[in-house]
Amino acid sequence: MILGNYVHGGDVYKNRVTLDFSANVNPFGTPEPVKAAIRAAAEEVDCYPDPYCTTLREKLSALHGVSPNAILCGNGAAELIFSFVQAVRPKTALLPVPSFAEYETALRCTGVEPVFYPLLRENGFRLSEDILDAITKNTDALLLCSPNNPTGQSIAPALLLKILDRCRETGTWLFLDECFQDLTDADKAFSLIGSLKDGDRALILRAFTKTYGMAGVRLGYAVSKNRDLLFNMSAAVQPWNVSTVAQKAGLAALDCPDWAKQARDLFRTEKAYLIKELSALGVSVLPGDANYLLLSGVPGLYGRLLGKGVLVRDCENYRGLETGDVRIAVRTHAENAALIAAMREVLHG
Amino acid sequence: MILGNYVHGGDVYKNRVTLDFSANVNPFGTPEPVKAAIRAAAEEVDCYPDPYCTTLREKLSALHGVSPNAILCGNGAAELIFSFVQAVRPKTALLPVPSFAEYETALRCTGVEPVFYPLLRENGFRLSEDILDAITKNTDALLLCSPNNPTGQSIAPALLLKILDRCRETGTWLFLDECFQDLTDADKAFSLIGSLKDGDRALILRAFTKTYGMAGVRLGYAVSKNRDLLFNMSAAVQPWNVSTVAQKAGLAALDCPDWAKQARDLFRTEKAYLIKELSALGVSVLPGDANYLLLSGVPGLYGRLLGKGVLVRDCENYRGLETGDVRIAVRTHAENAALIAAMREVLHG
Repeated sequence: MILGNYVHGGDVYKNRVTLDFSANVNPFGTPEPVKAAIRAAAEEVDCYPDPYCTTLREKLSALHGVSPNAILCGNGAAELIFSFVQAVRPKTALLPVPSFAEYETALRCTGVEPVFYPLLRENGFRLSEDILDAITKNTDALLLCSPNNPTGQSIAPALLLKILDRCRETGTWLFLDECFQDLTDADKAFSLIGSLKDGDRALILRAFTKTYGMAGVRLGYAVSKNRDLLFNMSAAVQPWNVSTVAQKAGLAALDCPDWAKQARDLFRTEKAYLIKELSALGVSVLPGDANYLLLSGVPGLYGRLLGKGVLVRDCENYRGLETGDVRIAVRTHAENAALIAAMREVLHG
Repeated sequence: MILGNYVHGGDVYKNRVTLDFSANVNPFGTPEPVKAAIRAAAEEVDCYPDPYCTTLREKLSALHGVSPNAILCGNGAAELIFSFVQAVRPKTALLPVPSFAEYETALRCTGVEPVFYPLLRENGFRLSEDILDAITKNTDALLLCSPNNPTGQSIAPALLLKILDRCRETGTWLFLDECFQDLTDADKAFSLIGSLKDGDRALILRAFTKTYGMAGVRLGYAVSKNRDLLFNMSAAVQPWNVSTVAQKAGLAALDCPDWAKQARDLFRTEKAYLIKELSALGVSVLPGDANYLLLSGVPGLYGRLLGKGVLVRDCENYRGLETGDVRIAVRTHAENAALIAAMREVLHG
C-alpha cells in the first residue's frame, strides 16, 4: 500500500465513479472458473502458499515452451519490477519515456537516477532504431514495455531482436514488459520469449492482471533463461509472496485460453469505433496496438469527465507527456458509447 | 516465491504429510466469516485493490487506538520485514539469535552483515537486561521478536520499555515482531504499541496469518508513529501489494475477536499436556508463551517423524540452534495425541 500520492489509473476508491476507463483491464472481467477457484481457495488459506508455485510454473512452462526453472512468479507483475531492479542493482539504466511509472519508481528506490530516452510525439511515440546507439557498454539495464503504456505502441519484432543482440554485445540487462501482449491485436503481438537463449541477460514480464481480470488477486511472472537473475530476484523477497488464492486463480485462468481472444475481438471493433467517434469530436487519438488509447490536446478533460462520474487516466504526470493527455481503456460497446456521450457533453454540451 | 532452499516450516508441498506441526498457525483454521469474505471478493477482483487499504486501516486504527496514518499494511508481515530494512538501510543491525530467519535474509539482501547477539540455551534463550549495553550509538537497528520464534520466549514488559528508552537515546531503529502476540497467554502478552510516542524510531509488526488462519491470503501490518518510516516503507514496494482478497478477509477477521481467545484457551491446556507427555518420553521441552514449543536433544527426530507422515520444524539450520532441536506447533488435542503417539513409536517403538 502507499502513503504518498497515487499516480496510476484505477483509483475508483477516492472518486465517485460510475464508469472506469482508467484501468486497462479486460472489460469482460474475471472468468467464472477463476472466480470459482478463488471461492474454493477459501478452504485452504489456513496453510502457507506453496513457496515454489510448483504447479503454476509447470503449467506456464508448458504454455511458453520453457523450463519451469525459467519462470518466477510474483505478487502481481509490479512486484517483479522492484525485485528485478533489486537483483540487478544497475548503476545506469536507460528508460524510454513516456512509459509505466513504476519502472522509474523502482529504480529510484535503489538510488538509481534513470537516463531518460525521449520517445517523440511527432513520431507517434514509437521506438526507432536510434535506440541501438543509445545502448552502450555503460548501460547496465534497459527497461522496455511493448505495447508501451500509456501509448499503446508495440516495438517491431525486427527491432526487438536487434535490441536483444545489442544488449548481448554490451552486457546490458534487458527488461521487457509484455503485460499487455495477450490483449494486443494478434498481428502486432510479438513476444521475445521464444528468442531468449540460455544465460541471456534478459527478462520478460507477464501478468494475469489485465488478461483475466485478476488485478485484485495479484499475480504476475517473469520469464528468463538467466538462472542467477531469477535466483537473486527470488532472494530479494519473502518466500510466500504469491498467495494460495493467486496460485489457484492463475491455474484456473490458464484453462480459459479464449478469454483473451474474446477481448481482442472486441477491441478490434471498439477501437475503430472510438477512434472514429473521438476524431469526429475533434479529439486527437493515437492509434495503438493495446487495449487502451492515448488522447491528447484537451486541457481539463480529466476533471470535466470526472464531474460526470467518468474516470479516465490523467497522463499529465507521465514523464514526457503534458496537460491534456489522457489514456482511456477500451471497454464494451455500451460503456464506450456512454464515454463518447459524456465526451460530447463535456466538449460540445 | 523462492528458487533456493526453503528453510521454514509449513512446507507440506514437498513432503507426504498427514500431520503438520511445522507451521505455527491457529489450529482452528480460518473463521467462516473470513472464508465468506474471500468467496465474496471473487466478484470484485477485476478491479485493482485499494492502494491505501483505507477501510482496513481505519478498523485497525480503532483496534489499537492509533491514527490510521500510524498503520501500513503489507503482503503478509514478511513483506514488511523487507520493506523496513529497505527503508531504514541500517549500516549496522543487532540481531538476537536464534530468531526468525527472514530478519537476517532481509538484512543480507540489502548488504548488511548482522551483528548477532546470542541468546543462551542455559538461560532458556531469554533476553536479559544485558542487551541494553549492546545497544550503542553505532547500532542503527535492533530486530526483536516477542514471543520469539522458535523459542516462544516473551520479552518482559519492563525490559521492553527499557529497550525502547535506550533506542531513543542511541537513535537506534527498533523493530519488534509481535506476530504471535494474539496467540500468547494473556498474562504474558504485552504489546509495545501503547508505549510508542510520536516520532519514535520504532515499528511493531503484526499479522493476520497465524491468528486467523490466513497464511494463504497474505496480510500483515506495521504500527509506527514515525511517519517518515512508513512513508519510505510504502515507497519501497508497489502500490497494490495488498490484494483485494486480503483486505476483505482482514476486515472480516477483525469482526471475529473470539477466534484468538478460543485458541489461547486451547493452548493453555494443550501446552501442559504436551509438556507432560514429552517429558515422560524423555524429550527436553522449553516452556514458552506462544503457540509452539521448542524441543531439544533428539538427533534425527525430524526425519524419523517425517517417515511417519508427521512434519515438524527442524531447527538445525536456525543460527544459534543445533542438531536435534525441533519446533512443534500446539494443535488440537486429537492432533497432539497423535503426535505423542508417533513420538513414542519413534523414540521407544
